[in-house]
Amino acid sequence: MPKMIEISTPGRGFINVTREVQDAVRALGGSGLCHLFLQHTSASLILTENASPEVRTDLETLITRAAPDGDPAYRHDDEGPDDMAAHFRTLLAGHELSIPMAEGHLMLGTWQGVFLWEHRAHPHRRRIVITQLPERQ
Amino acid sequence: MPKMIEISTPGRGFINVTREVQDAVRALGGSGLCHLFLQHTSASLILTENASPEVRTDLETLITRAAPDGDPAYRHDDEGPDDMAAHFRTLLAGHELSIPMAEGHLMLGTWQGVFLWEHRAHPHRRRIVITQLPERQ
Amino acid sequence: MPKMIEISTPGRGFINVTREVQDAVRALGGSGLCHLFLQHTSASLILTENASPEVRTDLETLITRAAPDGDPAYRHDDEGPDDMAAHFRTLLAGHELSIPMAEGHLMLGTWQGVFLWEHRAHPHRRRIVITQLPERQ
Repeated sequence: MPKMIEISTPGRGFINVTREVQDAVRALGGSGLCHLFLQHTSASLILTENASPEVRTDLETLITRAAPDGDPAYRHDDEGPDDMAAHFRTLLAGHELSIPMAEGHLMLGTWQGVFLWEHRAHPHRRRIVITQLPERQ
Repeated sequence: MPKMIEISTPGRGFINVTREVQDAVRALGGSGLCHLFLQHTSASLILTENASPEVRTDLETLITRAAPDGDPAYRHDDEGPDDMAAHFRTLLAGHELSIPMAEGHLMLGTWQGVFLWEHRAHPHRRRIVITQLPERQ
Repeated sequence: MPKMIEISTPGRGFINVTREVQDAVRALGGSGLCHLFLQHTSASLILTENASPEVRTDLETLITRAAPDGDPAYRHDDEGPDDMAAHFRTLLAGHELSIPMAEGHLMLGTWQGVFLWEHRAHPHRRRIVITQLPERQ
C-alpha cells in the first residue's frame, strides 16, 4: 500500500520536506522511482533551489502576479480572497513529483530541495501519498 | 501494453474524466500508480477542485491572461488565433498525471477531480494513454 | 540503477533530445514507462510541438512575460539578471517527464517532441536521469 505522511502548515509559505521524504523511503532500499502526491487542490509539491531563502520569496512574488488574491474577476470566493488564487497556483506549480532513487537515496541534484508550498492564508493539514516503484530489469 | 482511451471534446473547456479513468483501471486491482498521458500539445490533463464549476471558469480567466488568443507577438498562427495560446496553456497546465492506487481505486483527495482541458476552440478527438505501474515490495 | 545522460547547452534556448532519449531506452525493449528527471532548478524538460520552430520562439516570448530577467522586485540575483527568472521558468515549465513505452518505443503523439529548455543565458552541462519502470501485469 502507498504510504501516507501528514504535514501541518502555518499558512502560506514553504516547508522543506526533503528529509521527511528521504526518511520515508530509506527503509525499502534499492533502485527505482519515488512518487509524491499531494491530495489537495490548493497547495503544491515542488522542487526548487534549496540554498537561498530569497528564491522562495521571489517565487511568491512572481506567482502572486499570475494568481493574485481577491481578483475582481473571480467568481469563486467561497472560502475567501485566497481561495481561487490557491487553485490556480496549484495548477501552475503542480501537486506531484517523481524522484529517481538509487540504493534507497533520492537522486536529487545538488541544489534541489523538496518543498511543500502552502497556498492558503490559514494553517492546514496536508496529506502526501508516497508510492515507491521498482525499476525495470 | 499501455491502454488507450479516446475522448471527444466540443471545443475549449473542461470534461470531467474521473469516472472513465477509474473504470479503466479497476479491472487490474491491487496497489501502485496509474499514469495518464495525453498525446497532444494543445490540450491538458489536470487535477482540480471537483465541486464548483466556477473554479473552472476562473481557471479559464487566469490562463487566458497568461496565454491570450491572437496575441500580436505570436509568430505561429498556422491554425488560427487559438493555436499558439493552446501550446502555452498546455505547457503551463501539463499533459500528464500520476495517481496512486490502492485495491484498484484511485487515491484522490476528496476535492480532486481528473479533467481533460481542451485548449483549442474547435472540437477534437483526444487520446489518453493509461499505464499502470506496480508498487515496490 | 537509473541511467544518466549529459547534454551541453549553448545558453538559453531549446534542444530537441527526443532521439537521445529514444536511443537510451531502446535496449531494454518491452512495455512500461520512461521517466526523465533533470537534476537542475534552472532548466526544463518539456514536451511540445516538434514541427514549427516558431512555436518555441513564442514559448520564449510568453514565459518571458511571466518571468522577466532582471525584474526590480527580485531579491535573488547572485548569478545575474537571468538567475531568478530561470528558477521561476523551471517551476512553470517543469523539470521531469514520464512517457509510456511499448516494445521499446516511446508512445509520443505525432507532434510531440522532447526538448531540453535551457533557461540560463550562459552555456551549461545538464544531467538527465532516465528511469525505466515495468508495467503491471
